[in-house]
Amino acid sequence: MSVLVVGTVAIDSVETPFGVGENILGGSATYFATSASFFTDVNLVGVIGEDFPAEHIEFLKSRNIDLRGLVQESGKTFHWKGKYGFDLNEAQTLDTQLNVLQTFSPKIPAEYANAEYLILANIDPSLQLEVLAQVKKPRVVACDTMNFWISSKPEVLKEVIAKVDFFIINEGEARQLTGEVNLIKASRAILNMGAKNLIIKRGEYGVLLFTNGSIFAAPAYPLESVFDPTGAGDTFAGGFMGYLASTGNLSEESIRQAIVYGSVMASFNVEDFSLDRLRTLKYSEIEERYREFKRMTHFEQI
Amino acid sequence: MSVLVVGTVAIDSVETPFGVGENILGGSATYFATSASFFTDVNLVGVIGEDFPAEHIEFLKSRNIDLRGLVQESGKTFHWKGKYGFDLNEAQTLDTQLNVLQTFSPKIPAEYANAEYLILANIDPSLQLEVLAQVKKPRVVACDTMNFWISSKPEVLKEVIAKVDFFIINEGEARQLTGEVNLIKASRAILNMGAKNLIIKRGEYGVLLFTNGSIFAAPAYPLESVFDPTGAGDTFAGGFMGYLASTGNLSEESIRQAIVYGSVMASFNVEDFSLDRLRTLKYSEIEERYREFKRMTHFEQI
Repeated sequence: MSVLVVGTVAIDSVETPFGVGENILGGSATYFATSASFFTDVNLVGVIGEDFPAEHIEFLKSRNIDLRGLVQESGKTFHWKGKYGFDLNEAQTLDTQLNVLQTFSPKIPAEYANAEYLILANIDPSLQLEVLAQVKKPRVVACDTMNFWISSKPEVLKEVIAKVDFFIINEGEARQLTGEVNLIKASRAILNMGAKNLIIKRGEYGVLLFTNGSIFAAPAYPLESVFDPTGAGDTFAGGFMGYLASTGNLSEESIRQAIVYGSVMASFNVEDFSLDRLRTLKYSEIEERYREFKRMTHFEQI
Repeated sequence: MSVLVVGTVAIDSVETPFGVGENILGGSATYFATSASFFTDVNLVGVIGEDFPAEHIEFLKSRNIDLRGLVQESGKTFHWKGKYGFDLNEAQTLDTQLNVLQTFSPKIPAEYANAEYLILANIDPSLQLEVLAQVKKPRVVACDTMNFWISSKPEVLKEVIAKVDFFIINEGEARQLTGEVNLIKASRAILNMGAKNLIIKRGEYGVLLFTNGSIFAAPAYPLESVFDPTGAGDTFAGGFMGYLASTGNLSEESIRQAIVYGSVMASFNVEDFSLDRLRTLKYSEIEERYREFKRMTHFEQI
């Protein structure tokens, strides 16, 4: 099955201790869609401005991403400027120019209204609700957010959380959202908000999945060179949903495999700026790294 | 085979957000020995003062720990006082009274000189070298340390590292020791110092094992209530070496199982102050939690 992604498409300027990327392709939907496109067909809904480079459109098309839902408005594309220190775990936002995003109201094309796999990438939770109202009967909805919406629109965000199958959040945000320092308590509080399953991202420490009363812990792939962590979480989620949609299997075993595929995709993405690593990535490399995850975590039963 | 542990025996005063423990049993060798005693026979070498409560001796004896190497000197027992904030990841040392530890020079009893499994718990690396000189032909040596020795005696510590089979260190200390922020680079630098294998502890995020060019990543057990993290690392290492010594099997598969047993022991220990949780712990609980670790990390091969 195909995946429908709604979120931001951006032009980023990123500085890390290893270099600078000026006016590079970014945005939550962009990372999600590109990552998911390694596993299944992807439809993207978002907005760009008149300045959006044609080469980025060409790249997304080259990944077979359906762009009928990507509207171009007069004005400039959403621009994010950020910087990472040596620990690479948290970005410092230097500048945010919403531009065409300011008046964005996602319209789901009629052809997408029956989407079964829906990703609500990081975007205003009011817009996420608008999307949910337009997609008729999604089988699986995954949703991401960020600290900004947790502090500015917590009530709307909770409405969204109550409607999703997989709520995806990083550990600092989980603590912020619930006021609980302990992650087990925080996870219970979020599940009590109505999310069916919860994925907590812990950056270089991997991911925790809370589902059906059980916990799955997946490590991150230990990398010697992390160049740019931008989009790692979105790339994770794209691989996760892309794999789930490709199999149509929603068993816990399949969900765990999807978590590992997501982790594999994120581990590649941080190896270079923007989505550059995904431009050259081959499916055989994804499979090889999946097997490395298995070798890295395997131990014998007693 | 039995395990020989050399390290500190202490009286601690610990404050966490969940309570206060005054004059409770502590010390690196105490945690190591007690944890290892669930798997195999343990011989302990250390020093206590005249004030050391008889009940603690009784407890160690109740764990079948051989105390012929525990000497009592005139003066007071080593005392550590520390405090944890809500994140529980790092202790703030409020007071350290070395007392009898100040003049401690470990004498390995003749009966222990042929020990095959040796743990150099956290203690002055000069003393760790003295111990290595006295133990004739250990089959496996594991060694722990702390930030204080990395900054005050780095060269002596590196002499120790060159002689051990398993160097055990937490991630902040690994970065401090090597000057490398990236853990893969830090691990390579430590292996280049001569340690045969390296275990990097990451607190609530688990453990990384670097051995034979491969990496094993074990998560920590997600706990809802962590009361007192004191001794978690020592308890981990005690379970690790205790299990290895109990099997005598040094295959990578066995080493990985030992890592999980160590993680299981640490997860129990933090559930209460001092070693109190280990006082009531049953081997069947250890096995059950090992199986929970397996369930928590398992995913299907592709």
